Amino acid sequence: MSKLRCHISISADGFVAGPNQSEAEPLGEGGEQLHDWVVSLAAWREPHGKQGGEVNESTPIMEESLENVGAGVMGRNMFGPPGGGDWGDGEWKGWWGDEPPFHYDVFIVTHHPREPVEMEGGTTFSFVTDGIETALQRAKESAGGQDVMLSGGAEIINQYLAAGLLDELDLHVVPVLLGGGARLFEDLGDAEVALEQVRAVDAPGVTHVKYRVSTA
Amino acid sequence: MSKLRCHISISADGFVAGPNQSEAEPLGEGGEQLHDWVVSLAAWREPHGKQGGEVNESTPIMEESLENVGAGVMGRNMFGPPGGGDWGDGEWKGWWGDEPPFHYDVFIVTHHPREPVEMEGGTTFSFVTDGIETALQRAKESAGGQDVMLSGGAEIINQYLAAGLLDELDLHVVPVLLGGGARLFEDLGDAEVALEQVRAVDAPGVTHVKYRVSTA
Repeated sequence: MSKLRCHISISADGFVAGPNQSEAEPLGEGGEQLHDWVVSLAAWREPHGKQGGEVNESTPIMEESLENVGAGVMGRNMFGPPGGGDWGDGEWKGWWGDEPPFHYDVFIVTHHPREPVEMEGGTTFSFVTDGIETALQRAKESAGGQDVMLSGGAEIINQYLAAGLLDELDLHVVPVLLGGGARLFEDLGDAEVALEQVRAVDAPGVTHVKYRVSTA
Repeated sequence: MSKLRCHISISADGFVAGPNQSEAEPLGEGGEQLHDWVVSLAAWREPHGKQGGEVNESTPIMEESLENVGAGVMGRNMFGPPGGGDWGDGEWKGWWGDEPPFHYDVFIVTHHPREPVEMEGGTTFSFVTDGIETALQRAKESAGGQDVMLSGGAEIINQYLAAGLLDELDLHVVPVLLGGGARLFEDLGDAEVALEQVRAVDAPGVTHVKYRVSTA
């Protein structure tokens, strides 16, 4: 069955982005450190057109995150910079250049309607204005039996958690304290979200913890 | 050199005790789950006079936590139930019975002066009213060159973190969401606390992550 999976880097104090996110600092103050472990990997650098990089205990984790994924869902705050509703002149096409690294269709949950944007490399960005359930349904249809990857940010992950729609959560816990920012596991309301630890992996500068998620 | 070390169980959402701590529920609502991994261990049950128990990947972690410790420090909220200043009639002697499991002297940071209480098994509880630095100094003197163990709760750990006095932090991350309670890594003020990941261990129902702590 097609699952909704989420991979996200998180600080030891529970933030997936630092304080004061902006167009200049989309991950907030200090937030770039959350991705040091992944951008140092050869497995990340090669598909991003960069040479060199490390092979270590994080490599199979990163490779697994790419397997059997047929579509993506993300929040509006992950697709574009804070503020600006439809991203200024409506020409905003995400942070990832003309050929985004997804190579599958991505559904963006937003309050602002917009026509789909077809990118190079197999990704069309579609904008879903009627909620997270519709976005997931459309992504599952697009995924053709494969899984759907939920990219973030914190707010939409928390919404999917609260709605009982997330199946797997891979946290990449980075030894840094951000002291503020976008907090995971917040605003879950009365949802009784249960986690089952599937595995934990010790890697350089990061601990990978995989949880199976269910709701009572 | 004598180090200040801390071992603490923490929920995936960052709480070391659940909401509404009370004498009936000293770990707050749901907080008991944080200790399921340890009370199931033979290495915990034997010194607590109980039979049976498991031997698993958590066993060496628990054994290591007992090695080379010569004294302890804890917060007032860990020694006694919330409220009550000097714990009612002044006869409160902690949660651990006549022979507490520490077998070393423990220094309790509190605002309420009280004479030391000598227990069976090698522990005297002393009450320190002039702050965390004095408590640590007295514990180090008592430890005779061995390390000092900081037991908790969250508030005093955060104080030692903010003061740059903690050397090692072992988090035992439990796959449960408490949704509220006593949060670690809070109220650190302007302290620039740096964590270095020493190791992570995958164990049944818990991930053990050891950090070396320093301040800029």
